[in-house]
Amino acid sequence: MIRTAIIGYGNLGRSVEKVIADQPDMELVGVFSRRDSLDTQVRVLPAADVEKHKDEVDVLFVCLGSATDVPAQAPELAKHFTTVDTYDNHGEIPNYRTVMDKSAQEGENIAMISTGWDPGIFSLNRVLGGAVLPGADQMTFWGPGLSQGHSDAVRRVTGVAKGVQYTKPNPEAIEAVKRGEGADLKANECHLRHCFVVAEETGDAAADEKLKEQIREAIVTMPDYFAPYETIVEFISEADFERDHQGMPHGGQVITRGQAGTSGHVIEFGLKLERNPDFTAAVQVAYGRAAWRMRQAGETGARTVFEVAPYLLSAEPLDDLVAKKL
Amino acid sequence: MIRTAIIGYGNLGRSVEKVIADQPDMELVGVFSRRDSLDTQVRVLPAADVEKHKDEVDVLFVCLGSATDVPAQAPELAKHFTTVDTYDNHGEIPNYRTVMDKSAQEGENIAMISTGWDPGIFSLNRVLGGAVLPGADQMTFWGPGLSQGHSDAVRRVTGVAKGVQYTKPNPEAIEAVKRGEGADLKANECHLRHCFVVAEETGDAAADEKLKEQIREAIVTMPDYFAPYETIVEFISEADFERDHQGMPHGGQVITRGQAGTSGHVIEFGLKLERNPDFTAAVQVAYGRAAWRMRQAGETGARTVFEVAPYLLSAEPLDDLVAKKL
Repeated sequence: MIRTAIIGYGNLGRSVEKVIADQPDMELVGVFSRRDSLDTQVRVLPAADVEKHKDEVDVLFVCLGSATDVPAQAPELAKHFTTVDTYDNHGEIPNYRTVMDKSAQEGENIAMISTGWDPGIFSLNRVLGGAVLPGADQMTFWGPGLSQGHSDAVRRVTGVAKGVQYTKPNPEAIEAVKRGEGADLKANECHLRHCFVVAEETGDAAADEKLKEQIREAIVTMPDYFAPYETIVEFISEADFERDHQGMPHGGQVITRGQAGTSGHVIEFGLKLERNPDFTAAVQVAYGRAAWRMRQAGETGARTVFEVAPYLLSAEPLDDLVAKKL
Repeated sequence: MIRTAIIGYGNLGRSVEKVIADQPDMELVGVFSRRDSLDTQVRVLPAADVEKHKDEVDVLFVCLGSATDVPAQAPELAKHFTTVDTYDNHGEIPNYRTVMDKSAQEGENIAMISTGWDPGIFSLNRVLGGAVLPGADQMTFWGPGLSQGHSDAVRRVTGVAKGVQYTKPNPEAIEAVKRGEGADLKANECHLRHCFVVAEETGDAAADEKLKEQIREAIVTMPDYFAPYETIVEFISEADFERDHQGMPHGGQVITRGQAGTSGHVIEFGLKLERNPDFTAAVQVAYGRAAWRMRQAGETGARTVFEVAPYLLSAEPLDDLVAKKL
């Protein structure tokens, strides 16, 4: 059995707990949290004590917020644990990888970074499509759906009580790609970002309005996450938020159109997810299995989904996969 | 530059030649063939002399017929070359893998077996889907399209002058899977196999009819390839064959439906191929790059697509893939 633990118990951490329960080869040692009590039957331990438990844990699932907590805390964790995260700030991933590689090598661990579906298995399909059809046009569409990473970023803005962000594909861009005319479209031309925010209330109407303007400005100018996109920030009441924004559907597709030999081909990879954090957790847990196997094989350092042989993700033996799935 | 060669110059071999020409990091040393002259500008060498050229070739693309030539000849080739094949007799792959592993280890080579799209990147998606959503229902649909391996098998039947086989999905099965009711369907319930055959002519009408009956019987009872399927064998004239059956479109999809946490998810991987052998060759060539890199890293033995880290398929450096595609 692979002995696992979770640090961070938001949506992702709770989903990882459920996913681990369905694995034949994993047990959950405990959840590390800054909070004293959590709504779980699993052992809850103080996040501040995480290092003390390093000898009890084979793989630590890092389920902290991607916007600030993961880059701040994961490099230290990787010195003591084989870690798996879902760090999703695409523009910062190369730097993050360098930092995590140093930590993981120092600790003789594997740091499996930026798993999930995007980054994650969407990235894998971008590399696969581009390798098979070099020079192909490639486009990723997200949504319609709620983005965990971007919602997390919204919620960290000062004055935001509650917030979600929905990514929506631009229908005109999808049609252009299907016609083979989408090669030059940028991600920010293919999507818009729609935020629903419950602002904190000061009791003073003029101050409330000023706070909302500050929140809007902080969101739409946030580098990488929102600045390059058309971003709508809509303020709603807490009651409306609770009624309309509790689901977490998501999905999307990676489309690769290219030539091989003298003919044209289309590769499509699509996801329809009922609950985004559940699926992100499912991918993260599978890569946790791979991380532990790679560590057991003597590897150390940061690894991405590009470096993982697919059979390492599966609980089934390679011989069975060859017999049943090849 | 990776020095490559091709053995076998049918549809697949010709496509591999074209695909190699588009790779930035490969050169084609020559084509090995049983025929003296081929319609190519590349150096043509006798297949019987292939071993003499082992020191000139890093990767040998095995483009022989899958039905009989690959299992008969590839094990000997793997003793002398790092090979990449598209062996597609699913039921025989485990035995073939064992034989190829022994040969490749003996020769200190990599034998990359059963690449292409199915087996190949469809298999990869079956493993990925099953690893992320353990216990999921999974279904592969092929076509509508022409199957190279099955057409090859048809053409090897005694008395067949020309022949093609189209795989067609059963529309009722697709609808059942979309409704979530397809879990128990077998591959042979999801598809039918439609063969168009030009029979040799004896000049004697009664003998011709007898030959056709023998051909039909040989095809529909062929183990693995046709016996488990509803198979239609239609005899046509050579003129009709030349007019209607020169294209080689294909495609299909792998659908995985399963639970993670407490929610349901659908993963779809689809291909729309204008010309099947061109795309099969594109996959084979990408896995050739991976085979050579694995060999250079000191690995030997048989390998499947399940054992290849995705970045090894791409001509782009890993750091660039991380920066651009993760």
